[in-house]
Amino acid sequence: MSDIITQGSTQLLDALREAKRPAYVCTIASSETAAIEGLSIAGASAEMRRYTPPADMECLFYGHARSIPGIAATPDGIPSPVIITMASLGLTKLPVFVVDAGCEVPPQTPYFRVGDRPADSILSGRSVPNAAELYERGWHLGEQLARVTDYLLLAESVPAGTTTALAVMLALGLDAHGKVSSTMIGGANELKRRTVESAFQAANIQPGALSTDPIKAMELVGDPMQPVVAGMALAASRQVPVMLAGGTQMAAVAAVIAALRAADGTGAASASDLPGAGTTEGADRLCIGTTRWILDDTTADLLDLARQVGEMPVYAADLDFGKARYPGMHPYEAGLVKEGVGAGGSAICALSYGGVSKAVLLERIEGVYADTVLPMLEGNVA
Amino acid sequence: MSDIITQGSTQLLDALREAKRPAYVCTIASSETAAIEGLSIAGASAEMRRYTPPADMECLFYGHARSIPGIAATPDGIPSPVIITMASLGLTKLPVFVVDAGCEVPPQTPYFRVGDRPADSILSGRSVPNAAELYERGWHLGEQLARVTDYLLLAESVPAGTTTALAVMLALGLDAHGKVSSTMIGGANELKRRTVESAFQAANIQPGALSTDPIKAMELVGDPMQPVVAGMALAASRQVPVMLAGGTQMAAVAAVIAALRAADGTGAASASDLPGAGTTEGADRLCIGTTRWILDDTTADLLDLARQVGEMPVYAADLDFGKARYPGMHPYEAGLVKEGVGAGGSAICALSYGGVSKAVLLERIEGVYADTVLPMLEGNVA
Repeated sequence: MSDIITQGSTQLLDALREAKRPAYVCTIASSETAAIEGLSIAGASAEMRRYTPPADMECLFYGHARSIPGIAATPDGIPSPVIITMASLGLTKLPVFVVDAGCEVPPQTPYFRVGDRPADSILSGRSVPNAAELYERGWHLGEQLARVTDYLLLAESVPAGTTTALAVMLALGLDAHGKVSSTMIGGANELKRRTVESAFQAANIQPGALSTDPIKAMELVGDPMQPVVAGMALAASRQVPVMLAGGTQMAAVAAVIAALRAADGTGAASASDLPGAGTTEGADRLCIGTTRWILDDTTADLLDLARQVGEMPVYAADLDFGKARYPGMHPYEAGLVKEGVGAGGSAICALSYGGVSKAVLLERIEGVYADTVLPMLEGNVA
Repeated sequence: MSDIITQGSTQLLDALREAKRPAYVCTIASSETAAIEGLSIAGASAEMRRYTPPADMECLFYGHARSIPGIAATPDGIPSPVIITMASLGLTKLPVFVVDAGCEVPPQTPYFRVGDRPADSILSGRSVPNAAELYERGWHLGEQLARVTDYLLLAESVPAGTTTALAVMLALGLDAHGKVSSTMIGGANELKRRTVESAFQAANIQPGALSTDPIKAMELVGDPMQPVVAGMALAASRQVPVMLAGGTQMAAVAAVIAALRAADGTGAASASDLPGAGTTEGADRLCIGTTRWILDDTTADLLDLARQVGEMPVYAADLDFGKARYPGMHPYEAGLVKEGVGAGGSAICALSYGGVSKAVLLERIEGVYADTVLPMLEGNVA
């Protein structure tokens, strides 16, 4: 298992290796927050970012996107981490379920429709008015999914999601400034800080003000993925192990879950009335799965965030694109993109449950790159 | 197993008894066909019929509907067969998945969104313009679902679905007149015949004209449930046994599947280009599961329809409401309602996989009736 870096108990990693029928579930959403200039490069342009979540999902089903040509990429043409997910899921044959928590453009795949609208910008101070409903729908979905699998990987694809992650963690009272990652080198931490400050002003809240009301925190400054995945994870972890497959966005989900578990009925009614509030059942069945690039990010600190939410174990696939056959993959080593679409979690699954080596996984990722990205570079994509 | 009536091989019934993790999937849709006066009583009024599919699904998740008070019922107050499904799924703890093939009112539950619009009336001669897309989405969903289950029950809730079933079977060349059931006593066969004749005129087709192009048949005179369930069933049956859980509506789906399997590339391109076209793989993994009331229906002939589509096994739960504790359940014995929401299939599952007796199942159904219908009769529903 030297291909997987671990922090904390390795029990849930062992459980994944021995799982009989793990399933991969990716929750997608879009928000106006992604339109803030300079905040996200998850898409070639602000216009194209609208298509990144559905395009990622289409890649998982069809080997290429349908809503856009080829696959999603940064403005510089660095491909979406979906190439890692495609390779990993291809090797493991995991069932794939898509959850739409609120997308501007729906994916051209089968998907669970849980939300019906994208989030407003967090600058509005009320980005996800239906957070409580999304949480409850996620809860019911998680209950059903836990019945058909013995290990759940919960992934996400949400442009600008690290900014909403930062905002929610701060609202919950975490020490999170400068600790969230980004698709970009350097992380745009200063812009994120200013954006979140403006959001807090609009919402009329202070950091830590919503430590006992995580639903409200997501409602004011979050994104739709957070309540849906929190609900799914809380419900499902009562039955089966759950890996939150992502970087610091999943730390925010973990923080929401921790706050909900801590709800004792004396806090805000909006939290304590919800299913799963106040329960600690399944707390030891939750972990975070990500990539080495997230751990290597000197402008972020996922491990510290994981400690703050109750010593949640973190596993990271020790991927290395430094010697990849295609130069277009090398920028991952420079700190671009790093994670998303459950790339890290699905790679961990391939390396443990799937029993493949790092070399085989890399070769498969190169194969996906050759099939999906090279034709784009050569202009051969319809 | 004397509680289950069988026609044909009992192999797939044995497989259900021995299944480890069966799953229940209900596909819902609405169509303007249900607005034709006198054709459907699946709902208290034409207006209320719009809510029957979502209300049925909400009952499965929450024990009562959310889109309407209580649960769906006929104009006379006979409850939806969902009470049987609720009891059966409650006893077996099967995972529940909802598939929206095109509903006017979406359910307030998690659901797979596969279609985005209800069907037009078949009187338009082009009721499901997106039938090919629905089929393909259903196929991909079936592939994923087959990976998380070892036995799939595919149910439906589609008001006026027996009329579109009749139309599609006739278009495919089956001898189907007077052989489809109905929620109503007597089956409204004459009205159905006239409606389908008008639809064929509008579509400019003759019976049997589309025997090699089932997709076109559904596009012109079908409903959205048919292509979705046909796609799911064809894809999933390559991996696991599939029970089409319904009455004569499922005979139409079986007829579509048989026609797709028979596609040899010489027929219409629209059929032979689709996934699953021309394959006979999994043909022995398909059966129909329904209720005794359907078999007892002297104005219909499911068994003959099943023979016409290639000797598909038919199983029927030998339910008997004649001595039910609540008089409101007795009309089922008079031939009202009969089937829907996979009532028969889920009851078969409770009686085989679930290992419960007919008496225990009836008691549970009575319990559901007491919880959901009695408060309505007493006017105690918000």
